[in-house]
Amino acid sequence: MFSYAIGVDLGGTNLRIAAVDEGGKLLSKIALGTNVKLGREHVIDDLCRATKAMTEEMRDKFQGTAELRGIGVGVPGLIDIESGRLVESPNLPGWSDFDVKGEIEGRLGTAVILENDANVAALGEQWLGAGRNAESMCMYTLGTGVGGGLILDGKLWRGWNGMAGEIGHCNVYPDGHPCKCGSRGCLEQYASATAVVRMAREAVVSGAATELSKLAGNSDQEFDSRVIYEFAMKGDQVAKSVFERVGRALGLAIGNMVNAINFPVFVIGGGASNAWDAFAPALFDELRRRSYIYADTTAEDGTGIAGRKRTTVVTRALLGGEGGLYGAARLAMQGQTAPGK
Amino acid sequence: MFSYAIGVDLGGTNLRIAAVDEGGKLLSKIALGTNVKLGREHVIDDLCRATKAMTEEMRDKFQGTAELRGIGVGVPGLIDIESGRLVESPNLPGWSDFDVKGEIEGRLGTAVILENDANVAALGEQWLGAGRNAESMCMYTLGTGVGGGLILDGKLWRGWNGMAGEIGHCNVYPDGHPCKCGSRGCLEQYASATAVVRMAREAVVSGAATELSKLAGNSDQEFDSRVIYEFAMKGDQVAKSVFERVGRALGLAIGNMVNAINFPVFVIGGGASNAWDAFAPALFDELRRRSYIYADTTAEDGTGIAGRKRTTVVTRALLGGEGGLYGAARLAMQGQTAPGK
Repeated sequence: MFSYAIGVDLGGTNLRIAAVDEGGKLLSKIALGTNVKLGREHVIDDLCRATKAMTEEMRDKFQGTAELRGIGVGVPGLIDIESGRLVESPNLPGWSDFDVKGEIEGRLGTAVILENDANVAALGEQWLGAGRNAESMCMYTLGTGVGGGLILDGKLWRGWNGMAGEIGHCNVYPDGHPCKCGSRGCLEQYASATAVVRMAREAVVSGAATELSKLAGNSDQEFDSRVIYEFAMKGDQVAKSVFERVGRALGLAIGNMVNAINFPVFVIGGGASNAWDAFAPALFDELRRRSYIYADTTAEDGTGIAGRKRTTVVTRALLGGEGGLYGAARLAMQGQTAPGK
Repeated sequence: MFSYAIGVDLGGTNLRIAAVDEGGKLLSKIALGTNVKLGREHVIDDLCRATKAMTEEMRDKFQGTAELRGIGVGVPGLIDIESGRLVESPNLPGWSDFDVKGEIEGRLGTAVILENDANVAALGEQWLGAGRNAESMCMYTLGTGVGGGLILDGKLWRGWNGMAGEIGHCNVYPDGHPCKCGSRGCLEQYASATAVVRMAREAVVSGAATELSKLAGNSDQEFDSRVIYEFAMKGDQVAKSVFERVGRALGLAIGNMVNAINFPVFVIGGGASNAWDAFAPALFDELRRRSYIYADTTAEDGTGIAGRKRTTVVTRALLGGEGGLYGAARLAMQGQTAPGK
């Protein structure tokens, strides 16, 4: 019997729902806004109504021959994977300690798996994106912060507390910039979009920036990582040095993961990964210095470092904002509830 | 039918062989020296003769009812796991690119698995030692260098190139002490027995050491990490600060592994782990600062940090030098040839 799963990307701004078949083919998609201000009930109503409409669409389309395997929901925030509760989510105020899984299951009568958005994005990239030829993969999502997800032997690795993949808080500079987590010098403080803006502003304050300083008085909406990237690509030395710092921090962090876990593929996604051209050279340079054994020669396509026998690949994400949607569907299809402990 | 496996610890100094049953019970053990100077052939002769004698002993003891599941061999050095060749081993000169697996299999007619010594030590600790109640575990072996092994869901994780677990080369201080791997500030440069001596000698040269300086003119045989540990335990400030640096480096490195992989148990073994009392306080202090989420309170026994829901344990190895012997037998019993890719 033909089967499919539904993936839900429940963000602070967007609410998107997709029906995906076992081969990763998109069967249907609905994009709604998340009306956070109207409250949790309203958002859950929207979500369930749209999901129900989609299952009916599938039933009609396949004349009752398509089996719904489950619903996967990716949310930003801390999940208690066993209970399916959203422990806390800065982007979904008022949802703390809410039983998202139970609520949706109760309304729709279908098995639901709740998962962190960075984790489902990683699973999506491993299934259909940049990691599709690898069984294992490490993904960094460079956004406001730095998130991540680890796939080991085809499955999401959640770890002992379900907190694996907090790779934005891996340390790169022990005495570095303070992080809200209580440590200093976390990767997030050097490789997030927020960090790019901070480092550029620091350069302006220090007097090092010339062209950039004309814009630095603007708000963060106008003086963002995209603008700084454009300056870097036009040759502005200060903007270039900011992205060199991004690349060095990523190279250090990835080097540690090469040495420890020896992943075949590292995928870099999230909004700030659009500055790839500006940070990748420093990333590979640092990675060659830091990773044991693998760093002898450069892969021909310039995107990887050659290993003793096999090339370790570091590359950009391919699915953009869709990764989480596909990954959530994949998770529901795998029916994976509590592995990786 | 009752079954057992044979574990071999083939080191640069010791050659030990043990027969172990499925429950981890030691059935027989032979300890020989590794006559490295007499050459490879001689050592292989010794190994095969002793192993053959042991299988005969088992046959007699169990009157032919015991099945030999296989032979696991732990060696220091770089292994090509698929071919069973020892790529290179500083402790076994003249063995480079030698087909250890094929040679022993040819002589004994039994399946052989070759594995890195730090990896089998980790598997031994997870089976019968400090990690026996955990499915996953990360082990650091503090010796001349810092080795390591990762167990994920009960199995050795080898990684893409078979090089996973090179956690001695994970970076702790990007601009730190140069490492022979080409990087700077690897964990090995702060947490190995070699590093302890180097840091103590640095303190002597800088004029900071008082009591220690009386001994620092001695050779490394007499001025070793054990002597420096004894000074630390007697209250010598310089020796104490050396081990504080060991602990901080370990705390940083383990913190990264908590954030990335979220292991339930970290085990610290190897000769220099005997200085646990001197470095553990700094280790836990640093770990609390560096690990995201888990670091709120201290476990009651003082050996762990309490997590959001579950305690992450950092503890000493229990099997000492025997871990590798048991781990090699375990590997043969699992018949695990090429997982973790």
